[in-house]
Parts: sequence; C-alpha cells; structure tokens
Amino acid sequence: MRTFIKGGTVVTSEGAAPSDVLIEDERIVAVLAPDSDAARSLGAGADRVLEVAGKYVIPGGIDAHTHMEMPFGGTTSADTFETGTRAAAWGGTTTVIDFAIQAKGGSLCSAVDEWHAKADGLCAVDYAFHCIISDVNETTLKEMDSLVEQGVTSFKLFMAYPGVFYANDGDILRTMRTAARNGALVMMHAENGIAIDAIVEAAVAKGQSEPIFHGLTRPSELEGEAAHRAIVLAGIAGAPVYIVHVSCSEALAAIVEARDRGQKVLGETCPQYLFLSEDDLARPGFEGAKYVCTPPLRPARHQAELWRGLRNDDLSVVATDHCPFRYVGQKDLGVDDFTKIPNGLPSLENRMDLVYQGVVSGEISLDRWVEVTSTNPAKIFGLYPRKGTIAPGADADLVVYNPTATQTISAATHHMAVDYSCYEGKTITGHIDDVFSRGRQIITAGTYTGEQGHGRFVPCRVGQQLH
Amino acid sequence: MRTFIKGGTVVTSEGAAPSDVLIEDERIVAVLAPDSDAARSLGAGADRVLEVAGKYVIPGGIDAHTHMEMPFGGTTSADTFETGTRAAAWGGTTTVIDFAIQAKGGSLCSAVDEWHAKADGLCAVDYAFHCIISDVNETTLKEMDSLVEQGVTSFKLFMAYPGVFYANDGDILRTMRTAARNGALVMMHAENGIAIDAIVEAAVAKGQSEPIFHGLTRPSELEGEAAHRAIVLAGIAGAPVYIVHVSCSEALAAIVEARDRGQKVLGETCPQYLFLSEDDLARPGFEGAKYVCTPPLRPARHQAELWRGLRNDDLSVVATDHCPFRYVGQKDLGVDDFTKIPNGLPSLENRMDLVYQGVVSGEISLDRWVEVTSTNPAKIFGLYPRKGTIAPGADADLVVYNPTATQTISAATHHMAVDYSCYEGKTITGHIDDVFSRGRQIITAGTYTGEQGHGRFVPCRVGQQLH
Amino acid sequence: MRTFIKGGTVVTSEGAAPSDVLIEDERIVAVLAPDSDAARSLGAGADRVLEVAGKYVIPGGIDAHTHMEMPFGGTTSADTFETGTRAAAWGGTTTVIDFAIQAKGGSLCSAVDEWHAKADGLCAVDYAFHCIISDVNETTLKEMDSLVEQGVTSFKLFMAYPGVFYANDGDILRTMRTAARNGALVMMHAENGIAIDAIVEAAVAKGQSEPIFHGLTRPSELEGEAAHRAIVLAGIAGAPVYIVHVSCSEALAAIVEARDRGQKVLGETCPQYLFLSEDDLARPGFEGAKYVCTPPLRPARHQAELWRGLRNDDLSVVATDHCPFRYVGQKDLGVDDFTKIPNGLPSLENRMDLVYQGVVSGEISLDRWVEVTSTNPAKIFGLYPRKGTIAPGADADLVVYNPTATQTISAATHHMAVDYSCYEGKTITGHIDDVFSRGRQIITAGTYTGEQGHGRFVPCRVGQQLH
Amino acid sequence: MRTFIKGGTVVTSEGAAPSDVLIEDERIVAVLAPDSDAARSLGAGADRVLEVAGKYVIPGGIDAHTHMEMPFGGTTSADTFETGTRAAAWGGTTTVIDFAIQAKGGSLCSAVDEWHAKADGLCAVDYAFHCIISDVNETTLKEMDSLVEQGVTSFKLFMAYPGVFYANDGDILRTMRTAARNGALVMMHAENGIAIDAIVEAAVAKGQSEPIFHGLTRPSELEGEAAHRAIVLAGIAGAPVYIVHVSCSEALAAIVEARDRGQKVLGETCPQYLFLSEDDLARPGFEGAKYVCTPPLRPARHQAELWRGLRNDDLSVVATDHCPFRYVGQKDLGVDDFTKIPNGLPSLENRMDLVYQGVVSGEISLDRWVEVTSTNPAKIFGLYPRKGTIAPGADADLVVYNPTATQTISAATHHMAVDYSCYEGKTITGHIDDVFSRGRQIITAGTYTGEQGHGRFVPCRVGQQLH
Repeated sequence: MRTFIKGGTVVTSEGAAPSDVLIEDERIVAVLAPDSDAARSLGAGADRVLEVAGKYVIPGGIDAHTHMEMPFGGTTSADTFETGTRAAAWGGTTTVIDFAIQAKGGSLCSAVDEWHAKADGLCAVDYAFHCIISDVNETTLKEMDSLVEQGVTSFKLFMAYPGVFYANDGDILRTMRTAARNGALVMMHAENGIAIDAIVEAAVAKGQSEPIFHGLTRPSELEGEAAHRAIVLAGIAGAPVYIVHVSCSEALAAIVEARDRGQKVLGETCPQYLFLSEDDLARPGFEGAKYVCTPPLRPARHQAELWRGLRNDDLSVVATDHCPFRYVGQKDLGVDDFTKIPNGLPSLENRMDLVYQGVVSGEISLDRWVEVTSTNPAKIFGLYPRKGTIAPGADADLVVYNPTATQTISAATHHMAVDYSCYEGKTITGHIDDVFSRGRQIITAGTYTGEQGHGRFVPCRVGQQLH
Repeated sequence: MRTFIKGGTVVTSEGAAPSDVLIEDERIVAVLAPDSDAARSLGAGADRVLEVAGKYVIPGGIDAHTHMEMPFGGTTSADTFETGTRAAAWGGTTTVIDFAIQAKGGSLCSAVDEWHAKADGLCAVDYAFHCIISDVNETTLKEMDSLVEQGVTSFKLFMAYPGVFYANDGDILRTMRTAARNGALVMMHAENGIAIDAIVEAAVAKGQSEPIFHGLTRPSELEGEAAHRAIVLAGIAGAPVYIVHVSCSEALAAIVEARDRGQKVLGETCPQYLFLSEDDLARPGFEGAKYVCTPPLRPARHQAELWRGLRNDDLSVVATDHCPFRYVGQKDLGVDDFTKIPNGLPSLENRMDLVYQGVVSGEISLDRWVEVTSTNPAKIFGLYPRKGTIAPGADADLVVYNPTATQTISAATHHMAVDYSCYEGKTITGHIDDVFSRGRQIITAGTYTGEQGHGRFVPCRVGQQLH
Repeated sequence: MRTFIKGGTVVTSEGAAPSDVLIEDERIVAVLAPDSDAARSLGAGADRVLEVAGKYVIPGGIDAHTHMEMPFGGTTSADTFETGTRAAAWGGTTTVIDFAIQAKGGSLCSAVDEWHAKADGLCAVDYAFHCIISDVNETTLKEMDSLVEQGVTSFKLFMAYPGVFYANDGDILRTMRTAARNGALVMMHAENGIAIDAIVEAAVAKGQSEPIFHGLTRPSELEGEAAHRAIVLAGIAGAPVYIVHVSCSEALAAIVEARDRGQKVLGETCPQYLFLSEDDLARPGFEGAKYVCTPPLRPARHQAELWRGLRNDDLSVVATDHCPFRYVGQKDLGVDDFTKIPNGLPSLENRMDLVYQGVVSGEISLDRWVEVTSTNPAKIFGLYPRKGTIAPGADADLVVYNPTATQTISAATHHMAVDYSCYEGKTITGHIDDVFSRGRQIITAGTYTGEQGHGRFVPCRVGQQLH
Repeated sequence: MRTFIKGGTVVTSEGAAPSDVLIEDERIVAVLAPDSDAARSLGAGADRVLEVAGKYVIPGGIDAHTHMEMPFGGTTSADTFETGTRAAAWGGTTTVIDFAIQAKGGSLCSAVDEWHAKADGLCAVDYAFHCIISDVNETTLKEMDSLVEQGVTSFKLFMAYPGVFYANDGDILRTMRTAARNGALVMMHAENGIAIDAIVEAAVAKGQSEPIFHGLTRPSELEGEAAHRAIVLAGIAGAPVYIVHVSCSEALAAIVEARDRGQKVLGETCPQYLFLSEDDLARPGFEGAKYVCTPPLRPARHQAELWRGLRNDDLSVVATDHCPFRYVGQKDLGVDDFTKIPNGLPSLENRMDLVYQGVVSGEISLDRWVEVTSTNPAKIFGLYPRKGTIAPGADADLVVYNPTATQTISAATHHMAVDYSCYEGKTITGHIDDVFSRGRQIITAGTYTGEQGHGRFVPCRVGQQLH
C-alpha cells in the first residue's frame, strides 16, 4: 500500500519546505522535491494520492504525559485508553506515553503489566509507558533494570503528595543513582509537598474551602524550590532529570540556571499553564473546580515566562498531564473541601491546536511547534527517529494541518470523556484535517476513520538524545 | 543527470538515520528509506550510484567568516578566491561568506562590486558576501537597502581598530536601527578597541615587542565588555546582533544572559579558540606570530566554556575568520613590533574536521556538528533551506564523511596558500572522502575534481530564521 | 567654650543610644551616658547646655555632589558658594564637596585654584573639592598627583557630553591606572553619551522639543551599559570606582554584580531619583523643564529598586547633584528645544529631610540614614573620622533633629537661589532644629545664626575606607 | 569604682579613633578625646587608670554559637559552662550564647530551665540562650512565646540528623510562621540530612570507615540546597532566617542571591571553615577525627569565598560552633566507623585571635573584625547596644588587644577542656592583654583574674536590628 501525500509543506523540527511524502505500508519511505522527476514517478506509482496544497504535513503529536483510568482520591480519571487514544487521534496526537503506577507495596513490573492490560487491544494510536515509583527500595530499584529492558525507560517520582506518592530526598537520590547506571530517565513532580501540606492544614483550619485555595496553598515558590532541589540531587547523582508540568517562573529559573551550566535538565510545560491562569481557579461558585490541577494554575504573569522558555529552548516539551474528571460526579467530590477535588484537567485532544496558537501569535516558530509537541518528546524518551519526525524510515505517523481554518473548542464537540472543556467557546486558528498512524489514515478530512486496537505498544530506548 | 548516494547515514541538524539520497542535476530531490521499494526503483534509474556504507552524508559546510585577498596592515591575506575556495572544497565547505570591505570614504555598493570582481569566475564552491561598513553616514545607511536587494544582507561593524574600521556607539546604533527596519543583520567585532589602544600604547612604551603581547594587551574582559555593549545597543535598536569570533567566557556570558532574557543575540566562535590557546602565542622566538589573530588566543580555560556554549546552543556557529598570512614574508613584518604582525590565521580547510573532533571527544553531538557548521549559518544568513541541509529541494551540496579514518594535518599537504599550519602534526579522526557542490562532485575519494568558476554567488535573504 | 548637648539620642552609622555630647571649641570631646557621674560633672562644667530631649543628635550631613556657580550651556548654576552653603546649613548639611572643573585645554591645578577663589571667605559650612578632568593627557595625569597632595583626591570623568566633558574609554583607563597608583578615587558619570547623542539627533530631526524628550532620549539601558563598562575598566586598572547619581535599576544591577564579586565599586544616588519620576518630566507645558537633570528622572518603578539598593548597602551615598537653574531666565533657554534646557535641580537644602522620609516609611533604618548622608561620604572621600560621625575627636558638626515635627517644602521658604522647588507643597515629617559647624551653632531653633566665611576648606585624604 | 582606659585606639564596627574610655561600675559611661580637658578631668578622678598606648580597645567578643555539656552520640561535649566560659574569657569573648536543647518529646521551657541550671553560678562571663526545637508541634510553638518573654528569642532547627533533631519542611514553615508573628529568629542548620543519609548508607555499605568519609558523604551542594530551601521557606513565612555555620560557596551563593533581593537572610561562618580544610580531615590514621565537625571541612577553595562573604557583608557573624570532644576517650568512639565520631571542634578560645588574622592578611578591615565577632551578633540576637559596642551606656565588656604581639596556639597552653588543638603550633599575630566583663577585669596582662559565677544570664530582645 503506497500513499503519496502531495503538494504540502513538510515541517520538521529543523524547518519547513514544500515536499511530497511517500508512505509504504506503515513507514515513510521517501521525502521528495515536488517538481522533480523522482516525485512524478513515485507519485504516479502510488495506490493513493492525497492532495494537501496549502497545508502543513507534520509529524504526529506525541503526548508524553497522560493519565488514562488513573485512580486518584477515590475516583478514576474519566478517559480509558479507548476513549483517550481516540480523542488523541482527533487531536493529531499519534503517540501517548501514559504512567503505569506502582501500588504502594507492590511491584513496578506488575504495574506495567497492569497498564499493558488496560491498554491492550483498545488503543486508536500507539502508546508507551513511563512508570511511577511509589516505594523506593532495593526491590523496586532492581525492577528498574527489567523495565528498561522491556522498553519502559522513564520513571517518575513525586516530591509532593506525602503518604501517597511522595519520595523523600534520599529515595530520589537512590533512584537517580540507579538511573545514572542503567540509562533511565527520572521524571520529577517538583512541588515541596511537605511544606504545602502545612499550608493546606492552616487553610483548612481557617475554614477555607473554595477551589481557589487549591492554588493559594501551593505557592509557586515551592515548585521552584522543589525543581531546584531535584536539580541539585540529579547533579550529585550524575543523572539527567526531566521536570514535568512546569507551571511558573521560579521552576523555569531553576532549569535555566542549570542548563546554562550545562547540566542535563529538561523541562515540560502544559497548555493549561500557557493559556489558563489563577483567575480561572477563582471563578465564582464551584466553577473553579474545573481548573483544579497540580501544580495549580498560576497568576497570568507566568504565561509569558513559559512562552519565553519554550522559545529559548529552556523548556523542551509541551505535554498535557491529561487527567480528566467529570464536573458532575467527580469534581464535585470536593464541593465543600478543595482538598477533595480530584486534580486534573482534560486537554489531550486540544494540545496540538493550542500550541499552534503560539505560532499564530508569534510566540514560537513553526518548527519549534513541531519540536516541542513531537520531536523532542520522541528524542527524550527514546522513540526517535521512529517517531517524532517526517523522514524516510520513520513510522508514518503524520498530520495534515490546515493552518488557516478556524474552529471553536467545546465540550459539545470534543471526544474526551468529560462533560466540560477548560477552553469552552475559545475560537482558534488551525485545524487537523487528516491523521495517519503507522500508515493508516485515522482521521480523514476531519472524521474519525481509525480502529480500536490499531494502536500498539512502542518500547522506549535508553541513551536518548538530550539537549 | 541523476546521482544516487546509497547506504550512508544522513545527518542533519535534527538527527541521523540511514537514508539514500537522490540528486537530479544541481538539487537533492529525494531522501529515501534504504530498504524501500521507492529507493530500489529510484536507485535503479540513476545515472550513477555512489556506495557510501559506513559513512556520514552531511550538508556541505558553510564558512560564514572568511577574508580572501583582504588588505591588512600593508599586506594582503594570502588566499585568493581561487585558492581559498579550492581549499574550502578540500575541507568539505561548499559555501563561503566573505567580507566585502568598504574603503574609508568609499561606497558600500562599490565594495561589493569590487568583491564580485575578485570572485567572479574563480571559485570552486558557491559564495556569498557580508559587507563591512567603515564609515557610517547617511549615504552608507541608504546603501544598506540596495545591498539587501542585491542579496547582501549582513553588515559588519568593528568596536576595535580606531582609525581603521572602528564604529562608535552612535554609528552602531544608527546602523542597527537601519537593520531593524530593513531586516539586515548586524555582525559585530566586539572588542573595546579604544581601551585596548591605551593598553597597547603603554606596552609599546615599555618596549614590549614579542607576539605574546598581542594577547596580553587585549584582555578578555574587554571583549566581554564590548559584547555586552553591542547587546545593549541592539536591544535599544530592536535589532538582532551576531557577535563574531567569540573567544572567551566573558563574551559568552554576555550572550547567555541576553539569550536567557529572550533577546535575539547570536554568537560565533572559531576553531582556533576551541583548540589553540595563549600558550601558542607565547611560543619561543617569533613562532608565536603564527598564532596572532584578533581577538587573541586566550588562556586554555576558556576552551571548555566555548564548548559548553556550543553544546548549550549559546553559540550558534563555528566559522573560521580565515585570514591567512605567510610566516615568511608577511607575519615577519612584525618581527620587532607585535603591533605590526598581520592579524589572522589559516583554517578554512580544517574547520569541518576540527569541529568533528568535538564529536569524537563527546563535547557535541553529531547533529550539533552539522548544525553549527552548516545549518545554522544557512539559517542565520538567509540561505536555508537552499543550503545547510539534506532535504529535497536543497542544493546538492554535500559531503561524504568517513567517521573513523585518521589523518594528520600539515602545511605540507594542505591547500591553503600559506607556508604553515596552526595544527601542524595534529592527528585527527575523520576524513572528507567526497564533496558535491550543486550536484557536481568536486572531491572524489579524496581528490580534487572540481573546476575553477563552478562556484556561483548566492544571494542571501533577510527575515532569516534566528533562534 | 564648652557646649553640652543633653538628653538626646545620638545616632551614628552603627546605632542609636541616649547620650550626652560635650563640645570643646571646635571638636566633640566626649560622648557620655546621661545618668552617669561623668555626665553630671562635665555637664555642670559646660558654658552652655542645650536640652534636646526627644530629639536625635546626628552628624552633620555631607553632600558629596554639588555644583555651585557651575557654567553650563551658556549660563551658570544659580547658587554661589555663599547662597549654596547657607542653604546647606539650613538643610543640616555641614560639609559640601563641590566639583572644580578643568577648562578644556586648561590645567587641573588652575581649576582647583579657581574654585578656591570662588569659595574662599564666603562659605557658611566647610567644603572640599573633587576635580573634573575634561582632558586626559600626560600633563593632567601628572597634576592628579599634586592635587592629591593638596587634599583633592577624587576625580570625575564623564562618559556623556561628547565634545564637552566626554572621556573615551582609553582616557578613562589611563586615569584609573593613575588613580590605582596614587590612591585617588575616580568618580564616573555613567551614561553612554555617544549613543545618546545619536538618539537625540534622531529626536530633534523629528521635531521633538518638549522636556519629556530629555528623558526619552536617554534610556536607562545606556546608563546601565556605561556603569557596566566603567566597572570593567576599573577592574582592569585595579582601581575602585564611584558611580555618581545612579538613577535606574540597570546601573544598580551592574554595581550589585560587581560588589558581589568583591570589586570595589561604590554607588551614589540622589533624592530626585528616590522621590521624583518621569511623570514629572512629562508635566504639561514647559513645567517639565523644572525636572530636567541628567541622568533624567526615570519611570517610577526604579524608585523601589534604588531604596532597596540603599537598604542593602549596594548604594553607599545619597548626594544631591545640586545644580540649580531658575525656571524664569535659565530653564527657559530651552523652551523650544529640550537640548537647550540647563540640566540640573535644586535639592541641597532638602536632602537630609527627604532621605529621613525613608526612615519614616520604613525603607531604611535610622542608622542607615546617617550612614548614607554623612558617614559613608566622609569615609569614601577621606574625611572620616574628622567628619561623618559623633565621636570624641571629630569636628563638632552636628544636627539636632526633631523626628516628629512636620513641615511643608516650598520655594517660598527655602534658601536656595532658585524660584521653584521640585517638592513644592510636599509635607514631610522631621525638622532640623539646630545645626553646629565645627562647634559653632549656625542654626538655632530653626533660625540661621551662622556667618559668611566660617566654613573652611577641608582637605581629603587618600587611602579612604571603602566597603 | 571608676576605671579609666587611657591612650588606646577604640575600634567599633564604624571605625577606629584614639579615645579614652571611662568605666563606672559595670558600664562604660564616657568615650573621650584623649587630649581634651574632659579627658584630663575624668582621668584624674578615676580610681584606676589603665595605660594602653599602642593597643586596640574593642568590645568584648560575642560567640553566638556554643555547645557546653552537650549530649551527642552517647557522650557529652567536654567543656562545662565553668570551663568553657573561662576559656571564653581567655579568648576575649565576654558573652556566649549557648543552645538549650529540647529533649525529644520534652518541653522547650524545661530545656531552657535545664540549661539555666547548668550555667547558673558557674560562668566567668555573661551568657544567653538559643533554644533547639526537636519536636515542632502545637505545644512547642506556643512555648516559643513564653521563651521570647524570658529572653530566649532565637530558635534553631535542623535540616539534618533525621531521627534526632531533624525538622521537615512543614515543621520549618510552621516555626517560621510563629517567628514571623512573635519576632523570634529562626536559626537553621542547613544540610539536606535525608539525602546525606542515603549517601552515608552507601558509603558504609562499601566499608568506608575513615574520618575523611565524614566529609565525602556530606557534599557542599547539599548544604547549598538546604540553605536555598530554608530561604524559600522563610520568604513564604515572611520571617528572617539565620543560617548557622556556613561552610561553602554554594550556601553562600544562596545567601547572596537572597540578600541582593532584599530578603532578610543572615549568615554565620566559623573559624574552622576559614582556616581548616578537607585536607585536615584526610590526615593519616585517625588524626582526621580531630577535624570532624558538621558541616564538614571543605576543599580549601571555599575559604576565599567565605572571606569574600565576610568582607562583602554577605556573612554577618563569625561564631565557633564550639563543641569539643577529647581525642582520647571521645573522638575514638568512631575509630572503626566515621559515623560514630562525635561531631565538633574546640575553638571558643581562639576565635577573636583567628579572625584577627584576616585583618593582618588584609581580608577584612579592623572595624569589620569587631563587627562580625561582636557588634553583629549583639544586634542580631537583641543584645545591642548593651553588648557589642564601646559606647556610653553599654556594659563594660571590653578587650585590650595588642595588635603586634605574636603567640603560638597549642593544647598545652589553651584552657578549653580538650586534649588537642586544631591549630596546634600555628603562630599568629595579636594578643589579648586585658579583658573586662561588666567592668570587672577578668584577664589582666594575660592572666585570668575572673571569678566563677561573675557571669550572668542576659536576656535577648526581639525586634533585633538586622541588615
């Protein structure tokens, strides 16, 4: 089966140029100058030609941070692998990397097995796994080696959530030393949860219960502090570290300082920190609960800093931390107590479009859009060059993007399994017209044409390329 | 004419992957997965197949800083466009950007015409021009607009050499404001020449005449100061600035600080600052004169900082500042007085190989080697994607690089028109086997097969992509 | 003649404590615990007892930056040494350090002689001299040595005012090297005047004539740049440098960075930068001319930074740059052209009171008030411990300060020879009740009781104590 | 009883001048110009005149960090209040501030009572108390208020020693918030003890037992990290913080950054970090145990940074952390296991002399010597101006210091209750000739003339003056 994508502008992390693309079965096999004999001859021999003049052809998005069916605070995030990966397809994301979670006292390998079981046969697009370590001990440190062999090469620790996921600084150091040895990458939820709990405790004692207090009790200084600490520990261990969901200038500053020194520190941010703010959390009534995520939404002044971080290559990735809970029936667990509101937002489907708004507004370049949404996560997590680029030999994961169409985001039309959108009514420029996953067209002119179970597990390698 | 380059690993600034490359006439028209039907069919139809298994296929080097036949201190740099561009070909560099120099009181356009006349019909590889402005005034500021239309889009000013090239801060600001309007790029020789002259004057008064005093009278703090000042002026003008030949940690620090803030500041370094040091300038007798260039070679501790700058994307380009003078008959003009030694070193032919040593030693990645020697100069000076990449539609300027061969650098075997090498006897890893310039093979298995006059002028565009 | 000042709180730069002070003739000879036998016996033997319960007894102010009768732009600053030093007395300042100005082509020593002639026999309070060097050359550099012997130990250079006072970076370096040898202190007017002139030229060409353009054409970045450059040059010369009239966060940042490294860099600010802003310069009509000084008043956000600088000991001195011109008959020279407005403000009389407002508002402590207005200038310019403290052996220059009285500033009541006040109508807390100059009471309960000619020249020493 | 100290140079934190000093009973009542009538008359009326020509008269030292009879690791620090305060007297220290230690599960007030009982009636010089909080809980937080009323206004927490003194970040924040309310000062032992324990565990597992591993397992980065974290927490709480025993450039850098921003952060260092290094800890055999203290001695490069910190007012205090253990019978508890070596060094007696060596070598000025050893601790801990200065009304705690005499430090001649000196054989310049404590002469021409029980508890105030 040969598909010839003709007349578009191919955009990679390096740049953009008019090129035709030939897919054979599941792979891209040729990128061609449109007016060449070679293009004419290969185009003529194709089974199918898709004309995409005026459109961008970009590598399929990679969302390096999702939580499907994640148990949290007595409930479970609303998207399954089935609904979530289908929403991903709609949103131009052709690979998700989800977090397998070690149960307290359980095994890492079992966690990954469990997540395999959750995903197997249900996914619309390819997927990989990180592993969350809830207990650092001799056994789990050894299991890291096995998982690396199984293609799970990134391990997340939490400096927040004491009693749940919290790892103390000794645990972090032990894990990082193991990673320095076996090539794994430690991902860090950087918030000083011990100090935050003291602030929360004081707030609760004063009867502060509204959603806004979720934000006010988690000051950005404590995210900056934790990021700084994680970086110091990584420096001592001689391991790289990847700071997830950077939300504020303080954490960014810690990353910039380390990268300037040449330490291998990588930062991820999320659309919610680029487009939403503490003002949303402060919406009247319980409306703010829709915007409860961790780290919390910050005062709007942080947004420009994060965009600068993306532009300057101080932040490497935009992922979603997709972890949706329905407003009715889930978020309302915390109607009387902000500490009971499940933490997380839906945004998997909106990521590629939202980040493209930064191109429209001049915050980032076109190639940088591709880089932070696809190429960099592929490189960092060991999927490149199979994923994350449009190049011969790569998986034929690609998106035909209409750069000038407009659309309005709404829960009424989105495909994530939640009853609200954080971007309800927002009109944006750009539209995902066609999506290919390993050569199969799963979105066709804006309609889902994929198949449950098409998506496969893709193992991650170590020795990833880090900048 | 179709040439099929088969079996190599294509390296671009994004990454590396096994790929075949098809050239039609002067252009690359296809990049192909080696084991695909498409590759087989196009390979079969080629006029010629070059097997390059085990080798890298990289974009031809772009040396953004050369001085052919440059008048300096009563003599002229030793390479003509004929000898220089031929040496470039030997060295895997397929585009040079040379500096047309406005004569004091003369016209910018005349300078560019003069340089066209020097180069026309003589070059082995393609070439472009920057223009040095010696007098900033209403006329020359207006001429900038004409030159931009003629494809000369970058203009160099000097903060050093009072009475020769020196532009004061008002002149710099006027030029930058013009550049902010017409899209040109200001390149800056950043050394505080006014302060340096006071130091030189004191040294000469004390009878200090040896080559080492060239270095000791130009402290790195004064390069850092000038870089900082140029950056402030550029910020006020709202124009980007490109700092040439960064030699020291102080100038790098000024660049890092500005880039962290998001200001558009670009830095270039040169092989001599990465591999040579003040110790060379201090060689006994007059030997140090071989190493007299400006800024001077610095204490060796600066080298690691510059490598870090390259690795961290704080420095964007490695160019040569190639400006060779023969040891006998030219450098010896200054045998009794270091201020009379012509400033400049030969290194055009060695650049690609030398920077590759940073890959060998782990200082930079393979893709970063390509980026700083080819892709970035192409982007910054408006030649991308015609130059600087291996992609369909690009000029077929490429190098087949043997990553494991070794060679020894020597004046006895190099092709630059000088009687010495700064790297005499240095054994290095890597070898340029084949070079193509616009589809024509000009180095074939290590032998020159090019032709005088094949190289053409390539106009630069404005609106260049800057990171 | 023994005067016993009884019952007050003595404030020095170290701290405050209830103490009595005994003056014998011109000197303080004892500081005493109020309830001691010693105090009782010495108090009983005094010729005169001044009861000052509830008041502060502080060292007389030292204004390290005044311009009496200064020729500028075809006119002359309005205060003579007679009127100016009398206003100083009213304002609690018992020493002024004025600038003797070398005429272009003239001699430094002649300049100082000329200034001696201007001041001799006319002053109400003591005075010393800095010397402005307009031409740096072998002769003037040698004259620095003679002046150091004559008690003129600080020399000011200008990075602004090309063609008038401007010293280029070579001149600055030569002067600093001389200072490094003979112990003198270089004071720097840090603004990049060459770049500013290019901006002014463009503004004038556009017909911009109002006073606000004085500010808009002198961006704070160019003060920061010049401060940075002066610091680099001082570092190379191995000499300390004192940056006069710091007006903005950029210059302060350069000072902070240098002091953190341990370089001997001192900063002075002025009341106008702490209390006035660009908004005053933008007052309607020609009113803004009253606020034309150089560096110009800045956007109000800089004020908090300067207060922080004072609090943190990053800025060491508050002086006035007192250089008054009458609104009618002087400032109006520039009614059609902001470049013709004489630069300078009156504030000598208001300094001690204005800076005290920082104590009232909590910006600085009581002892820091004394330190930045008196002790530090005494130490820096070689007058300590003769001046700048309340300690046995010191000149009996002191002020009895009522910390709770209020007053309203007005040109109607001030004693400076100008027809306006920059602080007209401003009500402040604190009042200067009594002032002693070398033991003589020159302000008595708010009335001038001094005498023309009482003030004497005080030579400055080198080897001053710098922090 | 009137004592007249005649002919010396009085040195305070502000400066130095020849002055006579009159003591009436326990207080200084007059400071006098030596050649004045006042001095002559009061000198004539004195009961006793001490001629001190050629000597400095300085405020008695205040050692803000001592541990007398401190239980640690199954043994007890060797100096009692009796022996320790006598050694203090010999060393020119007239006030010690010791740490009362809350027993785990016990009460803060009981701890202070216990320390009162240890000290009462035994001390040669005055003393005050800080309180170490081992358990942060509602009760102990409330006890802070009572102690503040009792004159114990500073509370120390540990970020090291998990299971012993360790306070987590929530505890720290709670304590700081209490301090922000009641005016107390939190002192912080800043080392990341949780991470350190992981490193120690790994070292022990490898069989590393020698004293040097005490240093190698406590990297300076983890002191820097903890200092940074303490500063962030203090910023959130709105409380000042005092970092004890800063040993390294990383912790200093955190302090500098905070102070530049204007945050109230104070740093203390100790003589051992200024004069000793990791090389001492690496001495052959078990000799290194003599140098085991926490934080550990650092590589020698840190010393220059700490001196710069003192010079620049980035570090405010030099205290000793005096906590002596005998080499034979105490240190040797850890002969087979570095983790068992009691942590601590003797240096109370040597502090004033050692820091004076910084004056001799030009690291700090004479007034800065007085400031960091006496005035600043008095101000910071609420004892100024009763202690820490030579001024009328102050306690007559003073030292007559011979600036040119030399002496050799040795355990054979020192008065601390330990069998070794860290400075054995070191010859230094300067000698403590006479010491007065509240008017009583306790060292007379180098001989102890004090009395057990003369020293009294001095309560500390809050609202201390902080820079």
